[in-house]
Amino acid sequence: MRVEDLDTPAVVIDRRIAEANLRRAQKRADALGVRLRPHIKTHKLPLFAMRQVEFGAAGVTCQKIGEAEVMADAGISDIFITFNIVGRQKLERLLALHRRVTLSVVADSADTVEGYGGVFTDPSRPLTVLVECDTGGGRCGVQSPADALALARRIASHPGLRFGGLMTYPPRGKVAEVDAWLHDALALFRSEGMDVPRVSVGNSPDFYADQAFTAATELRPGTYIYSDRMQAAFGHGTLADCALTVLVTVVSRPTPDRVILDAGSKALAADLSPSPGHGYIVEYPEAVITTLNEEHAIADFSGCAARPAIGDKLKIIPNHVCVVSNLFDTVNLVEDGEVVEQLPVAARGRMG
Amino acid sequence: MRVEDLDTPAVVIDRRIAEANLRRAQKRADALGVRLRPHIKTHKLPLFAMRQVEFGAAGVTCQKIGEAEVMADAGISDIFITFNIVGRQKLERLLALHRRVTLSVVADSADTVEGYGGVFTDPSRPLTVLVECDTGGGRCGVQSPADALALARRIASHPGLRFGGLMTYPPRGKVAEVDAWLHDALALFRSEGMDVPRVSVGNSPDFYADQAFTAATELRPGTYIYSDRMQAAFGHGTLADCALTVLVTVVSRPTPDRVILDAGSKALAADLSPSPGHGYIVEYPEAVITTLNEEHAIADFSGCAARPAIGDKLKIIPNHVCVVSNLFDTVNLVEDGEVVEQLPVAARGRMG
Repeated sequence: MRVEDLDTPAVVIDRRIAEANLRRAQKRADALGVRLRPHIKTHKLPLFAMRQVEFGAAGVTCQKIGEAEVMADAGISDIFITFNIVGRQKLERLLALHRRVTLSVVADSADTVEGYGGVFTDPSRPLTVLVECDTGGGRCGVQSPADALALARRIASHPGLRFGGLMTYPPRGKVAEVDAWLHDALALFRSEGMDVPRVSVGNSPDFYADQAFTAATELRPGTYIYSDRMQAAFGHGTLADCALTVLVTVVSRPTPDRVILDAGSKALAADLSPSPGHGYIVEYPEAVITTLNEEHAIADFSGCAARPAIGDKLKIIPNHVCVVSNLFDTVNLVEDGEVVEQLPVAARGRMG
Repeated sequence: MRVEDLDTPAVVIDRRIAEANLRRAQKRADALGVRLRPHIKTHKLPLFAMRQVEFGAAGVTCQKIGEAEVMADAGISDIFITFNIVGRQKLERLLALHRRVTLSVVADSADTVEGYGGVFTDPSRPLTVLVECDTGGGRCGVQSPADALALARRIASHPGLRFGGLMTYPPRGKVAEVDAWLHDALALFRSEGMDVPRVSVGNSPDFYADQAFTAATELRPGTYIYSDRMQAAFGHGTLADCALTVLVTVVSRPTPDRVILDAGSKALAADLSPSPGHGYIVEYPEAVITTLNEEHAIADFSGCAARPAIGDKLKIIPNHVCVVSNLFDTVNLVEDGEVVEQLPVAARGRMG
């Protein structure tokens, strides 16, 4: 089937662009001398997780146990869940997962550590726990290297747990500050004779930045596989590196300049980008998607020389691609305009 | 199972509040002397669609054929799809659906009408097509009563189509203007001797407004079944009328005032409300959810007298409830804090 024969809205992934993005990232990690551990939240597909590992990734990163379970089912053997896992039901699932794969998790509080310690009690197969550090991102994380050390000691005090190192989700564009925080922590741990096996640093926007995280032993970009309008606006590649588009149909042209597309926030998500509007229309770069309702995109074509006809199919590069992956049950892989594979988004909607 | 034993994040629907909202809306429609045709986008559940019909609704409204197919499968016999259906694949599904239920659709262009006319050719079972009117909403719709008349004539010229009336999705808070537009159109149609069988007017916010749409024969509110923070902010009921909450767990408290919850934009959606923040925390009304990442909510508790502990479960009333229904595969119906039913969100993610 040709792409243009797909019913809309549909997610279309250019496999060659995606694979080129995967190879380039692995090269980048190799050049930096760090391990690549891609975040699967962007694609949520076993196929691409396996490709990432084939290309050299050390394993994958997941945010939810449900995502990790899907990846384990698909044969991924090394999974890092960068989330404080709290509550009896989740801890039991975590224990079951730990029996199947090489698993690591994070903690930023004594409560979380005690939760792990209460369930993981086998010294012959300890759970690896990294300390999540708030290096300026303002989300989770211990607030100082001293707090990181105290929590690492608490982890190490449990026979069924193993201190795995430090993890942070850094604020974008603050490489020097984040690096300084981590080096301070590493110096403190060293002065206390405590080994830090891994220093895992996240995010896509800084992955290709001129300045690298020198404290990191592992990087966890996610969005780079598809890229999106936000990444391009941040200067990370161009729109030509965007592998995922949403195919839509023009369903109405109520005025000369207003064009209505059959994809709203239920397909494109309402996330904003530094660029104007709710996505980039490939065929009409000057068009601006001014409003998204749930099932309609309202676009202003006043800046365009031509206008599409009702029934025309157009491709949209979304502002934020990860959230789009979570909205569709199926994606279409294409090569040269031909649909070569239709895949269920296996880790979509895994909430817990 | 008790609500507090649910793993998080989870959607919890207070069945009694939802049913009270349904009954109140039917009473309102009856008092206005109009037919109620609820939009199922808010709940996406056959169960509640059937309840709406049991309580007196004339049928339901869907935005997508996929939603309508789910509702037809569930036994709903009268369905209005308020979307310009364009493209061969969708028209064929529409034809199949038309054989099963009493179906009506809309058109705002000659292209859409000609599309219907090309597929629906049986004069013994014509497809009912309403003319979608832009009464100030700035989305789809013909721009004037004269254009509505011209399109109605085009519909009527097809033996397999039947002109069904006028439909509009009105801008919020503009009842008088919308009503004037519709009355102008009705006068024009009357002067031309053309019957207008139905005048269908949408939206929840104006459903309980003091001023009613006097031109309407049918109203299509959706959000009223659950209500949400946005509706309450608009003055339509109070937060006590909100039937749907998202149960979340406190997973981190990195600073005295910062609380991290295990539900981000993937569970709560990023839609904003006139009230500050990304949702209302029932147990801590003064807390403000300042940021949603995909899997984390970051909340500022500086205005609260108390703080929750890690592991505590809290209930959030979302800003916009319809989009939340589309993010979860399952919802939990509760009564008196007991989970009485777990339902798949059957019409979730129906894109086309």
